[in-house]
Formats: sequence, structure tokens, C-alpha cells
Amino acid sequence: MLIVVGYDISLMDPQGAKRLRHAAKICDRYGQRVQNSVFECLINTLEFEKLQRELKAVINPEVDSLRFYNLGQNYETKVKHVGAKAVTNMDQPMIF
Amino acid sequence: MLIVVGYDISLMDPQGAKRLRHAAKICDRYGQRVQNSVFECLINTLEFEKLQRELKAVINPEVDSLRFYNLGQNYETKVKHVGAKAVTNMDQPMIF
Repeated sequence: MLIVVGYDISLMDPQGAKRLRHAAKICDRYGQRVQNSVFECLINTLEFEKLQRELKAVINPEVDSLRFYNLGQNYETKVKHVGAKAVTNMDQPMIF
Repeated sequence: MLIVVGYDISLMDPQGAKRLRHAAKICDRYGQRVQNSVFECLINTLEFEKLQRELKAVINPEVDSLRFYNLGQNYETKVKHVGAKAVTNMDQPMIF
């Protein structure tokens, strides 16, 4: 299933930049960045639960926020991209 | 239907900041901001087409990007929020 993850990490406190890097690193392991703080992850239910646990352990819930959108299995028609940095379709074979 | 809009506006050129403000103003008219550059819009198909046209007219597709996610009518179970700035449920009556 396709999970879209968006995060807002506050940079008001000195630890913010570290939390931001850490959140991006976690999301990088589960999917790919499509915008500054938006990742798309093709994962199953177990992986999604793990991703949530890892991110929750990193953020400061008082000032940071996570947003997860579950687009399910048939996501192709639900995602539309306009402009720069179009993302290669992850489950299509990379042709070199 | 719930449409999630994410935008990445490049601030490398002098017009970037103006495009960013303009994109946010447009999205504000169609829905509500849930993260820095992520908006959630409860709109119908016609409004969605209009929103896309307006945003496309504002961005520079060479350097900016728009991402639209269509979560359909039954979106409640597909959206999960963790941490700060939880958004009030838009189609619930505001109780003061």
C-alpha cells in the first residue's frame, strides 16, 4: 500500500535540526522523498506500524507533527504530479 | 472528496517567495493548512480542477512542484495525525 508521510519539525529549539535529519533518514529507509518534507512509502501494514513507532520516538509531539495518508493498493490514479522533480514510479523496473 | 495538496516552491530565484505566498493563498481558499506546505481540501471534482488550474498558473514548473493525493469520500480512516497542531475535523460543527 502507498503511505504518504508528511512531517513538520520545529526548528525553534536547538534539537530541531537533529530531529529533522533523523526523521528524514527514517523515511528514506521506507520510501522516497517527493517533496521537502513529504515521502511516499510502498510498504505493508507491519512496516507501516514500524515506521510510525520509529518516527514517534524521534519527534517532540509538543512542537512537531506527523501526518500519514493511506492511499491503499490502487494508488496510481490517486496521485498527480505537476512540475519539477517528478518521481520515478517505484514499482516499475528501472530501465538503464 | 479529500484532496491533499503538497507543494515545493523553489526560493532560489527572486520570484520564489511571491509564488510561495500566492500558492498558499490559493490553497487557503480551498482547504486548510495541516503542515508547512501541505493542505487538505474537502472539494468536489469541479473545484479540484479549478484548484489545479490556479496552482499551475502560479508555479514555475521548471523548479517548483505540486503533488495531489486524492483520498476520496471515505477518508477518515486514511488520515492519521501525530503530535502538535492537530487540525479540527473540517466537516464537524465547530462547538464554541
